[in-house]
Amino acid sequence: MACCGNCLCCQCCCREGETRTPEELTILGEIRDEEDEILPRKDYESLDYDRCINEPYVEVLEGMDNKKAKKYEAVRWMMVFAIGVTVGLVGLFVDSFVRLFTTIKFSLVGDSVEKCSNKGCLSLSLLELLAFNMTFVFIASVLVLIEPVAAGSGIPEIKSYLNGVKIPGIVRLRTFLCKAAGVLFSVSGGLFVGKEGPMIHSGAIVGAGLPQFQSITFKRIKFDFPYFRSDRDKRDFVSAGAAAGVAAAFGAPIGGTLFSLEEGSSFWNQALTWKVLFCSMSSTFTLNFFRSGINFNKWGSFQLPGLLNFGEFKCQDGDKNCHLWTAVDLAFFVLMGVVGGLLGALFNCMNRSLAKYRIRHIHPKAKFVRVLESLLVAMVTTVVIFAASMLLGECRELSSPTTYNTTVSSSEDINSTIRQFFCTNKTYNDMATLFFNPQEAAIHQLFHQDGTFSPVTLSVFFLLYFLLACWTYGVSVPSGLFVPSLLCGAAFGRLVANILKVKLGLHIYSGTFALIGAAAFLGGVVRMTISLTVILIESTNEITYGLPIMITLMVAKWTGDFFNKGIYDIHIELRGVPLLDWDTEVEMDKLTASDIMETNLTYVYPHTRVQSLVSILRTTVYHAFPVVTENRQNEQDFMKGNILVSNNIRFKKSSVVSRAGEQRRRCQSMKSYPSSELRNVCDEQNAVVEPAEEGEDMLQQMLERRHAPYPNLYPDQSPSEEWTMEERFRPLTFHGIILRSQLVNLLIRGVCYAENQSSASQPRLNYAEMTEDYPRYPDIHDLDLALLNPRMIVDVTTYMNPCPYTVSPNTRISQVFGLFRTMGLRHLPVVNAVGEIVGIITRHNLTHEFLGAKLRQHYITV
Amino acid sequence: MACCGNCLCCQCCCREGETRTPEELTILGEIRDEEDEILPRKDYESLDYDRCINEPYVEVLEGMDNKKAKKYEAVRWMMVFAIGVTVGLVGLFVDSFVRLFTTIKFSLVGDSVEKCSNKGCLSLSLLELLAFNMTFVFIASVLVLIEPVAAGSGIPEIKSYLNGVKIPGIVRLRTFLCKAAGVLFSVSGGLFVGKEGPMIHSGAIVGAGLPQFQSITFKRIKFDFPYFRSDRDKRDFVSAGAAAGVAAAFGAPIGGTLFSLEEGSSFWNQALTWKVLFCSMSSTFTLNFFRSGINFNKWGSFQLPGLLNFGEFKCQDGDKNCHLWTAVDLAFFVLMGVVGGLLGALFNCMNRSLAKYRIRHIHPKAKFVRVLESLLVAMVTTVVIFAASMLLGECRELSSPTTYNTTVSSSEDINSTIRQFFCTNKTYNDMATLFFNPQEAAIHQLFHQDGTFSPVTLSVFFLLYFLLACWTYGVSVPSGLFVPSLLCGAAFGRLVANILKVKLGLHIYSGTFALIGAAAFLGGVVRMTISLTVILIESTNEITYGLPIMITLMVAKWTGDFFNKGIYDIHIELRGVPLLDWDTEVEMDKLTASDIMETNLTYVYPHTRVQSLVSILRTTVYHAFPVVTENRQNEQDFMKGNILVSNNIRFKKSSVVSRAGEQRRRCQSMKSYPSSELRNVCDEQNAVVEPAEEGEDMLQQMLERRHAPYPNLYPDQSPSEEWTMEERFRPLTFHGIILRSQLVNLLIRGVCYAENQSSASQPRLNYAEMTEDYPRYPDIHDLDLALLNPRMIVDVTTYMNPCPYTVSPNTRISQVFGLFRTMGLRHLPVVNAVGEIVGIITRHNLTHEFLGAKLRQHYITV
Repeated sequence: MACCGNCLCCQCCCREGETRTPEELTILGEIRDEEDEILPRKDYESLDYDRCINEPYVEVLEGMDNKKAKKYEAVRWMMVFAIGVTVGLVGLFVDSFVRLFTTIKFSLVGDSVEKCSNKGCLSLSLLELLAFNMTFVFIASVLVLIEPVAAGSGIPEIKSYLNGVKIPGIVRLRTFLCKAAGVLFSVSGGLFVGKEGPMIHSGAIVGAGLPQFQSITFKRIKFDFPYFRSDRDKRDFVSAGAAAGVAAAFGAPIGGTLFSLEEGSSFWNQALTWKVLFCSMSSTFTLNFFRSGINFNKWGSFQLPGLLNFGEFKCQDGDKNCHLWTAVDLAFFVLMGVVGGLLGALFNCMNRSLAKYRIRHIHPKAKFVRVLESLLVAMVTTVVIFAASMLLGECRELSSPTTYNTTVSSSEDINSTIRQFFCTNKTYNDMATLFFNPQEAAIHQLFHQDGTFSPVTLSVFFLLYFLLACWTYGVSVPSGLFVPSLLCGAAFGRLVANILKVKLGLHIYSGTFALIGAAAFLGGVVRMTISLTVILIESTNEITYGLPIMITLMVAKWTGDFFNKGIYDIHIELRGVPLLDWDTEVEMDKLTASDIMETNLTYVYPHTRVQSLVSILRTTVYHAFPVVTENRQNEQDFMKGNILVSNNIRFKKSSVVSRAGEQRRRCQSMKSYPSSELRNVCDEQNAVVEPAEEGEDMLQQMLERRHAPYPNLYPDQSPSEEWTMEERFRPLTFHGIILRSQLVNLLIRGVCYAENQSSASQPRLNYAEMTEDYPRYPDIHDLDLALLNPRMIVDVTTYMNPCPYTVSPNTRISQVFGLFRTMGLRHLPVVNAVGEIVGIITRHNLTHEFLGAKLRQHYITV
Repeated sequence: MACCGNCLCCQCCCREGETRTPEELTILGEIRDEEDEILPRKDYESLDYDRCINEPYVEVLEGMDNKKAKKYEAVRWMMVFAIGVTVGLVGLFVDSFVRLFTTIKFSLVGDSVEKCSNKGCLSLSLLELLAFNMTFVFIASVLVLIEPVAAGSGIPEIKSYLNGVKIPGIVRLRTFLCKAAGVLFSVSGGLFVGKEGPMIHSGAIVGAGLPQFQSITFKRIKFDFPYFRSDRDKRDFVSAGAAAGVAAAFGAPIGGTLFSLEEGSSFWNQALTWKVLFCSMSSTFTLNFFRSGINFNKWGSFQLPGLLNFGEFKCQDGDKNCHLWTAVDLAFFVLMGVVGGLLGALFNCMNRSLAKYRIRHIHPKAKFVRVLESLLVAMVTTVVIFAASMLLGECRELSSPTTYNTTVSSSEDINSTIRQFFCTNKTYNDMATLFFNPQEAAIHQLFHQDGTFSPVTLSVFFLLYFLLACWTYGVSVPSGLFVPSLLCGAAFGRLVANILKVKLGLHIYSGTFALIGAAAFLGGVVRMTISLTVILIESTNEITYGLPIMITLMVAKWTGDFFNKGIYDIHIELRGVPLLDWDTEVEMDKLTASDIMETNLTYVYPHTRVQSLVSILRTTVYHAFPVVTENRQNEQDFMKGNILVSNNIRFKKSSVVSRAGEQRRRCQSMKSYPSSELRNVCDEQNAVVEPAEEGEDMLQQMLERRHAPYPNLYPDQSPSEEWTMEERFRPLTFHGIILRSQLVNLLIRGVCYAENQSSASQPRLNYAEMTEDYPRYPDIHDLDLALLNPRMIVDVTTYMNPCPYTVSPNTRISQVFGLFRTMGLRHLPVVNAVGEIVGIITRHNLTHEFLGAKLRQHYITV
């Protein structure tokens, strides 16, 4: 199977770019629309993790003392606690209803099957099951229609968000409702999906929403701190929420914390991590509290671990020869890791092909087609489950009652979930036991059932499950991937255990092998490292499994990485999200900041006319603009020669911002400005430039270009030879950077002064006014231009970020990347040795694809 | 007791600086020698975590491809594995010998006591015990005499190292040997010390040494990568080693990883963390492997957890009403956390006073006085143990045999370690059981013994233990603090449990309360957060204890922080280590980079004469020098007025580097240069400046000043009013930074060119030559000046770091601090808007004390 699978998709398994000659990819942006390559899109906005310490912010600071800071800290702790409890309750809600629906479904259909086994009315039972499943899946699918972002596991989205990319709608209340309700129905509907991924997403939304919600809706609970209204705070709370989601789903508070570190934080903030851990703990134990209360009626005890737990692995007391694992087993674990990695790579590869097929052929069609696909999957799954349980099962003998599995943690006796369909007493139908149960129960069976499963059953189960799970992930219902992968892998592991134990007669503990198989396959699919290790250790509640789990995951990841990326990264790539890796490759250090920076800048002056600002905002899509002053004298000094030449200075010759290009661009764009007098200013220059287009068309083009991939937004306006030296070298001293949202805010609130006044007369905004509209700042196109006087001047110095981190043009990529990634930046100005801005680096200039292309370019020119 | 203790040391409990008016502390460096305040010393060197990407480095990069990078990565993994295994073996070694010695000791003395109990020859037994203990402690103490750094737990040192401070001798082989052997004897000697801290230190040394060792000593195993020879790599390996140490000591691989993150890493490097986790796992399981093999003769199984484990907390199977803990208990846990925090604060406070007393009155005396103190402590401890066991114990009834404690993890039956001294059958002497056992056994007793301990016994035990442990920590033997704190806290917890259970008749699980008491007291003493939580969870191997442990630790930390710092931080402070906290306080953001930077710089030109370099190196203690060019014209342009004034420019007026001061300083220092012709150059200027001193004296003064606290090294040479404007404002364009070690290296290797030649004729060093002497670069004072031609010129541009991260003078402290701390910098140049260096920020400018003083200054001037 692995062989045919490899043939099937060897195209997508091989890494991009390796089969092509570097020459083919030389000119960036020319051959980027290839069949197989999906490039990071430029229309995703970045989050801004760095603080903009401008004057309004400093004013807030001045009013700050340690007492206020402590109060603020206390509020944070409360928030984090609230998030934890809420996420725990959400988990409880989802879990309770899934349990309820599943129990009803399986008991009704199970009874019907038992009754029918003699009468031959099995088709009736099948119809019953179909009716249940298709109804549930239909509801889930309709919920996703309402909010398409709610589809899938949500982990790719959260990963992107924590990485610093704003994906629209990802942390909205509507998404939360659709996701939480949807996953409930998709799991109840018998699809091969888990609820863990969606719970993590839900947790993240709670984290993003709760602290905002309090400060907006409940006016009474209003802090005199407008501080939670920034991407920085929001992202911290999202980290906490996502961690709480993991903690609730797996009962793994430490694993949750490490998950949010692994997927999100670029830096280790001890205070934040401590809060995240507290949030995870709150979530886990809220869930425990209520589940212990509801299920056992033991209110106040915390006996039940998380939703997904693996029960207790334990040798029977009398058995002296029993070991959970030994040094010899480690060799098998390594092999299983390799196989798990291969299987995972195959899974990812197939799923990738499917996802691309969906993007091309299903998504463009009417939306109900997606619902139809969901229903088709549900139908096939149901039929497979039913048919396999009825036809393919073998009757196996139950072992002697396993007294030691009656622990508090497993909560149900392992034998309570066996299925006896058509089997005599003391035996059970092994296929039905696996298929005709909730997935968690099936996992428990594979881990702890002492009775054997036949190798044929396990193989068939694995194959069917593998294929169906692969098909299901990506269908438009909320669908996690953890539990299906675990179950699939556990079957594989149990198969290995059966072979070793029965055929080779080794003394091994089957449960351990099932666990390792689960880890190997899951590791091969998702390729997570630290957090997955810890999550699995916590789920088994057995520290001694640490080493085998870790080694298996390591081997599985290495094997899988040889072929393709992890499933979440694949889906992130398919969405075109410009994700930043952890590190750049060593080779990339052959490039410097000047090789990758965007040199075609649009800038503003410290004091700019309203008309210019509006035209700049209307004709560009940049999210930030450097604030500069011209510094012509300075340049000439250097031209006439300072003998001690610094490395940095040579860049001035090649890539200093061109003022001429900028000038021309602005004049063109003035067309879209309604005030007729403005046109006159530019008309005289138009003859030199190019035939004027209609203003409306210009704007239209701009908007269309938004979605164009890489190439410069103004390919026709880059500095060309026709300009004089005079025009091309006008160095611009860098003074700060101002965000688009800040500029629009200033315009809307009329922050400007008349030409004949001093800039001190300009009205001042405080911090609260600057951030009032967070997170949805008004668009420049919503601005009523008639209200503005275009001749007024805006002084932006008060509102810009005067001291962003900068790098010099010679800085190596690893340093640039380190600074950008670690400090969570959004715009990184490149400033030369004499303080002139020569370029700007954003997330798009640092994606793996962009750097790779630039490196190939570098090799050619060298 | 808590009351009288508070009176005793209320002076040291109150935070520094709060009782004084800000005016008193205005002028920095004037009243810094106060009785109670110990300031960060300036003579600690910083580690350099940032890479210096100069041309030799780039050459190495150019020869780098992905294959080489992968090979390098593989070597790293092997190193990490080797470190893990070695640390595990070290742990095994220490543990085995401690066990051996302790067993011999207690069985001999125990037998003697049992025999003597009737005959009245108890004094003989006491002498026997004294002989054992004092011999062991004497050996430990002598080992510390050989290498004084080996004293104490080593955690403060490792914390400092990971924080980025180089403490001499901290990671040397000799330290390792003394520490590992010393802790073995100090623990065996019956002192109230643990072996965990020293093991962490040992692990760190293994981490630092192993990768270096391979590349130096075994010439055959030589990688063609000279890459491990940098502070950056070394620090990564030290992280791994320290984590492995924790992992071995507590059987807590995840906790170990988090420990090294919490104490060290400022940023989350996923690849590194994954390696650290692997290293911890290797260490834990190496230890397990050998212990299982040696103790159980079950080679190949991994049944034993870490050295310190808390056994299994478990209700008896039949008992339906038994809960490990309930929601109600949480309230008690919070109270216990408060008490634990108070007790911890008291402990720290007393220990601090003691340590200060030692610094003042014992350390200056002859070294054998320290040995005498150790012996005194050993004697008192022994007598107390003996007397308490014999005289104060009560006979308590053993409960029915607790079958469920016979788990694999505890390895000995709980009842095997009880002591029956003078008690009849079926009863045991409770005081002797606690005192007359290894500490781990006593902890097990408190956690799992179902028989009760009398409240009086527990109180007396707690009190004696508290006082003796407090006295012991700081004596010059290797001494950990974890186990004594845990034991002390467990006694407190058990006392609470006894009161609640017996007096109030509550249904509680005593073991949980003992555990929580231990956590509360340990948390109150060490104030660790995330890692301690995880370590304790892993030691109990019970995830359901997560919430209570976390809440207790949180409360204990908050309570304790109200009074003083954690014990490790106190000892770091006493050593005067300039440790950087995690974050600055919010208030500090009122300051900017220009407020805290060092403005009195010594710089070099891109091309400098040998004579100047030598004089600069000989007369300063700075570790790095900015490379600058003069840029006079530029300045005048600004003076005559560019109307659009940027924020940044105003700094030029006040704090531009003074060239005049620099000039004068150099001339003075020329005296120490042997070449007589050089003097002439300066002599003419000397009249203007000040009476010339003798060269030798000058140098002597310089060296003495090294140890002076804060004030400028040249208070008499700061820019003063007597200079003309002309001289004071000579702006210097910043081009890079070069380290002292690099300059000395260039001089020693004769990298320079003659005046009449081009700089291209200068010999070039490659990366290997640049780093050959790592980590001990030659000192400038070892340089034979006769070999140098003072008129030659050195071109440093090839070897300087051309692109260090820089900040603008207006940058707020939180941003400066974030950059410095997160990127692990050593020197952060402050560069204004036109590229001129105006100051430099180092670790010393960012310590809490320095910032606090500057803030008070700020308040006064505002």
